[in-house]
Amino acid sequence: MAETPKTLTVELGERSYPIVIGEGLLANAAEYLRLAGVPDKSPLLIVTDDNAGPLYLAKLTEALTAGGYRALSAVVPHGEPSKSLDVYNDLITRAIEEGLDRSSAILALGGGVIGDLAGFVAGTYMRGIRFVQVPTTILAHDSSVGGKVAVNHPLAKNMIGVFHQPELVLYDVETLKSLPPREVRAGLAEMVKHGLIWDKAFAEWCRANAGRLLALDSEALAYGLEQGCAIKARIVSRDERENDLRAILNLGHTLGHAIEAVAGYGRFLHGEAISIGMAAAALIGEERGAAGLHAETVSMLEALELPVTLPADIGTEALMDAMQRDKKFREGRMIFIVPLAVGRVEIASDVDADTVRSVIERLKRSGEPS
Amino acid sequence: MAETPKTLTVELGERSYPIVIGEGLLANAAEYLRLAGVPDKSPLLIVTDDNAGPLYLAKLTEALTAGGYRALSAVVPHGEPSKSLDVYNDLITRAIEEGLDRSSAILALGGGVIGDLAGFVAGTYMRGIRFVQVPTTILAHDSSVGGKVAVNHPLAKNMIGVFHQPELVLYDVETLKSLPPREVRAGLAEMVKHGLIWDKAFAEWCRANAGRLLALDSEALAYGLEQGCAIKARIVSRDERENDLRAILNLGHTLGHAIEAVAGYGRFLHGEAISIGMAAAALIGEERGAAGLHAETVSMLEALELPVTLPADIGTEALMDAMQRDKKFREGRMIFIVPLAVGRVEIASDVDADTVRSVIERLKRSGEPS
Repeated sequence: MAETPKTLTVELGERSYPIVIGEGLLANAAEYLRLAGVPDKSPLLIVTDDNAGPLYLAKLTEALTAGGYRALSAVVPHGEPSKSLDVYNDLITRAIEEGLDRSSAILALGGGVIGDLAGFVAGTYMRGIRFVQVPTTILAHDSSVGGKVAVNHPLAKNMIGVFHQPELVLYDVETLKSLPPREVRAGLAEMVKHGLIWDKAFAEWCRANAGRLLALDSEALAYGLEQGCAIKARIVSRDERENDLRAILNLGHTLGHAIEAVAGYGRFLHGEAISIGMAAAALIGEERGAAGLHAETVSMLEALELPVTLPADIGTEALMDAMQRDKKFREGRMIFIVPLAVGRVEIASDVDADTVRSVIERLKRSGEPS
Repeated sequence: MAETPKTLTVELGERSYPIVIGEGLLANAAEYLRLAGVPDKSPLLIVTDDNAGPLYLAKLTEALTAGGYRALSAVVPHGEPSKSLDVYNDLITRAIEEGLDRSSAILALGGGVIGDLAGFVAGTYMRGIRFVQVPTTILAHDSSVGGKVAVNHPLAKNMIGVFHQPELVLYDVETLKSLPPREVRAGLAEMVKHGLIWDKAFAEWCRANAGRLLALDSEALAYGLEQGCAIKARIVSRDERENDLRAILNLGHTLGHAIEAVAGYGRFLHGEAISIGMAAAALIGEERGAAGLHAETVSMLEALELPVTLPADIGTEALMDAMQRDKKFREGRMIFIVPLAVGRVEIASDVDADTVRSVIERLKRSGEPS
């Protein structure tokens, strides 16, 4: 009963690429690569982690081999620490040793970490070779659109990176069935974010269908991923290099990244951290006049079983310091994406530090047992 | 008697940028940065080495400071070993610590190594920030046009990089007066290369004016640099991402890179290695029917006091192996840029390994004392 895959195009002129979403796509990977113009004369390198690798690497490799490709693979430890310059260097070494050339492609089989890491390899190996995303998480629906690839620096996340658009995103929803529930919830945070910034009806659909999404219902997932990707694709098409509009995609991320950094990478999943960040942004929006916004936002996040408060042990000043180092602070001003209503946001450069401090404190108090 | 600076535009659509060539430009650096749209609200980072730094860093910093910019600097050891991922990582750390943001610019004050290294920092810091080239060598006239920036991997040169166009190239010919004679000669190798691939009259001008060029005559240098940059700019404008035409700029580089790698970085300067590579390419061209090409090419290279033979201790098979790993080998085929005549080359994918071997042997024998 597999439905016909949905194909969405990210419109970026000569860098446009398709996102294919559906069931059982891995088995037809070679065909999709060929359609995307990936030549079979040069070796491919599949980058994956020890979560996705054991589950899907053999299947993908077999499909590619049967289709005439030579597919090599590299398995890195799962999690954010693999998004480092050291692991990156190991992958570059591997690519050189295996003779990858300018006609080769790097495939990212995994979640956002693998996509970012493998994408940065593809974006910088020989000054950029082909890149194919094969996301195996819900969260990756966000990172697979837009071409942002990066590794972390010990002092700040995603500090080292480039824009490198994939040739193809192959989204096999069957791979999502193996996700742990916590990862599912964290992934849905980015999905509902696309509704919160751009499409109130979609945000409400996420709340109404939270049960089906959390239960990994294929149809609900495919619809939600398609909508999330489509919203992001519309925004990225208008602003590929993040000059302005694209910044709205960072709703919840200014504080979210700071939470991840201060708590230590790993304590919060990215989606959890930005869920708290989106609750914070709603509070800022409310202070600027959007009555009831926090309660409505929180109802949507909580329907998806996402955190909306801050543990008291996360230091407020440490968060403030981490935010000062954030890429999103341009020329020393604090820039926040602030919602005006569900489905509509503004880029505010006039949020003062005291407002941010007070919102952080409120998020902590609202998290205390009463 | 400083002449009016010459300004040349590299035409790349919205990524077009000016190359300003003249005397005494460092003193007016702030003005040129402002004209190029570099904002003064965010800090600049000047990357230089312990050759150019002691000579020009104070002057450049003072000029920028007087013009309202905040200019920080990082000095790295001179030479190819600084084009490493380690030095790159140090510079990224410095940029983060100093609070460089998306409105900041990285300035490269030095030769090709500094341009490549600083350019890769600029191209990947926060996914790409502004970049300004301030070349202080003749060789850098080549690397400052085209946007290719990279660091080396222990297994192969320039393996890690991106295309990142500068906002501005500021070429102060006064900085060339401090170059050691050997660096002057090596730089002129890339200058005459532009004639050899594209413009016979310019190649002949280089031979006729070799004495003035070697004596660092300002007028001759400015003309030669302008012509060299202009030829490269015309080629790059037609083919920014090195799909095809741009490959002709690699005349002499296939063997040249291999010589550098096998001899150990540092024994040959880049310009010396590609001079030998161009002599080799001329021999291949002669074997394919271009009578007299080797003698004519060698007369141009020798006028500039450049090497045209190979020392016997450089292993032929080691060179062959190094060439196999070169980026310019696409899908396992050996690709050489082969001259048809002075000023005209072809991209040949049918040069067999035995021909290359025999040419290497001839270059060694012609270098033996008779």
